[in-house]
Amino acid sequence: MSRTSSNPIFRPATAEDVPAIVAMLADDPLGARREGDPGDERYLSAFARIDADPHDELIVAERDGEVVGTMQLTYLAGLSRLGAERCQIEAVRVAASSRGEGLGRRMIQWGIDRARARGCAMVQLTSDKSRTGAHRFYDSLGFAASHEGYKLSLS
Amino acid sequence: MSRTSSNPIFRPATAEDVPAIVAMLADDPLGARREGDPGDERYLSAFARIDADPHDELIVAERDGEVVGTMQLTYLAGLSRLGAERCQIEAVRVAASSRGEGLGRRMIQWGIDRARARGCAMVQLTSDKSRTGAHRFYDSLGFAASHEGYKLSLS
Repeated sequence: MSRTSSNPIFRPATAEDVPAIVAMLADDPLGARREGDPGDERYLSAFARIDADPHDELIVAERDGEVVGTMQLTYLAGLSRLGAERCQIEAVRVAASSRGEGLGRRMIQWGIDRARARGCAMVQLTSDKSRTGAHRFYDSLGFAASHEGYKLSLS
Repeated sequence: MSRTSSNPIFRPATAEDVPAIVAMLADDPLGARREGDPGDERYLSAFARIDADPHDELIVAERDGEVVGTMQLTYLAGLSRLGAERCQIEAVRVAASSRGEGLGRRMIQWGIDRARARGCAMVQLTSDKSRTGAHRFYDSLGFAASHEGYKLSLS
């Protein structure tokens, strides 16, 4: 069976997936500058915290037994909008070998559906202004670029 | 003692602060459309979840015994940047009676200092593109408007 005919599955990551996820985070024009050895124990510590938190999910896309995509879904509490929960998506990546096949679209749509099923009032994310291709992608999924995304580095 | 000569204190909110916080969320050109009765039990449920979460803090500014500002600090886990924690600021408000006195600046700076002391690598927030005054404010605090902030309403 060719790779394009095999459907991906989306599931919460396990500790064994962490090196593959870190490799995808690093294989990126922006991410390459800020990641380290995929075996660094700080990655496993961060995974352990996410895994233990009922409001946080690190997701992988798997196809033919291989991890080919990832995103993190965090369910944010807040008083705004009558105490509505929001789903925040961070750290979206598709493996270089699987780009251009619609996998990212299926993954984000899966995340949106999961947030809706949970009762979230909103899905939100930010995207670096240099990622113009990603902006067209999120526009096409129905997201509105209604906000400025501010970052202040402390390191 | 005049109000401007009294220093605010910043502290985690209690359940008793919730109605005052909701009133500030609603007293806003955008917030007015989406909030309800400050006594609505959904606000208290959301507060209870934040209060129980060691990675989430609802903060109030108090001056002369009165709640005059609020913000929420959420400490986000993630694998990116060697598993660094980020501080996300949401739901920033200053009471109408206390605007123009630098309270918002002191509150955000207090949040930045708290995130740094905790070891966060970054502070992040989004601001509606219509809030141009807020953008000048965050620029002046050292934040970079490096990202597009996308929202998808599910309700």
